[in-house]
Amino acid sequence: MDNLPGALGTSASLALRLGQTVFSSASLLFMCLDVDFYSYTSFCYLVTVMGLAIPWSLTLLVVDAHSVFIRCLPRQPRIILVIVLGDLVLSFLLLAAASSTASVTDLLHDAGRSYCAANLCSRYQLSAAMAFLCWSLSFASSLFNLWLLPSL
Amino acid sequence: MDNLPGALGTSASLALRLGQTVFSSASLLFMCLDVDFYSYTSFCYLVTVMGLAIPWSLTLLVVDAHSVFIRCLPRQPRIILVIVLGDLVLSFLLLAAASSTASVTDLLHDAGRSYCAANLCSRYQLSAAMAFLCWSLSFASSLFNLWLLPSL
Repeated sequence: MDNLPGALGTSASLALRLGQTVFSSASLLFMCLDVDFYSYTSFCYLVTVMGLAIPWSLTLLVVDAHSVFIRCLPRQPRIILVIVLGDLVLSFLLLAAASSTASVTDLLHDAGRSYCAANLCSRYQLSAAMAFLCWSLSFASSLFNLWLLPSL
Repeated sequence: MDNLPGALGTSASLALRLGQTVFSSASLLFMCLDVDFYSYTSFCYLVTVMGLAIPWSLTLLVVDAHSVFIRCLPRQPRIILVIVLGDLVLSFLLLAAASSTASVTDLLHDAGRSYCAANLCSRYQLSAAMAFLCWSLSFASSLFNLWLLPSL
């Protein structure tokens, strides 16, 4: 079980964490390029969730990179459990943020040009799409580590 | 493991399925009391997801009731796996529907009385709250059945 791909400390996990970091940063960037997001609750929620997701995935990215390139860290069941629960909670928050952003953007897009200039709306849509991608990677990480848990 | 509470065929599972059926029906009812939901994408999405959730939870409610009151049905790993996956997918759909409904309702509420009469908005909020409750019960069912799976 030691080389289960996707579990903590493997190169597949490193790739997953890298993807999470990139997608969550891109989502935050697309949302925050102007300060207009401040007027909508769900956009603020997305920014808050990304503020949680970026440090979480960066930390685990560093741990994975250390395991892969320098020296494999010992896996303790309690730490894996915390990582599984953290990923699971984060994936729920990300899904909720992504779907609420997508629905609000759709509503603003339908409401016409007064609410949402053409550039702005497509930027919000991109941000929601990045959040969906980040959700799927985060859920995959959680499942892989959950799979590893009973064998420890 | 045969009497793990919450797994398929126990009285706790019957209670969970009953809660899912009641909450999803209530959510659909609150949303569909008028035909105004038709103009918003996320409300239509909620109605679609509830149209999946109600038959799913009703079917499993009948199976659980049969197991509890008449005769315990044999548990096959493949069936449990299908139920776990179905509950998991359904819980993601429910969370996405609930959060998008909540965010759109919030936006309509802020936009003023022209978009959303006082009664209508509180009905949409109730519908979103019921969908959140249904999500939590559905996810709990999925976790309990997942816990049972390795022992079969």
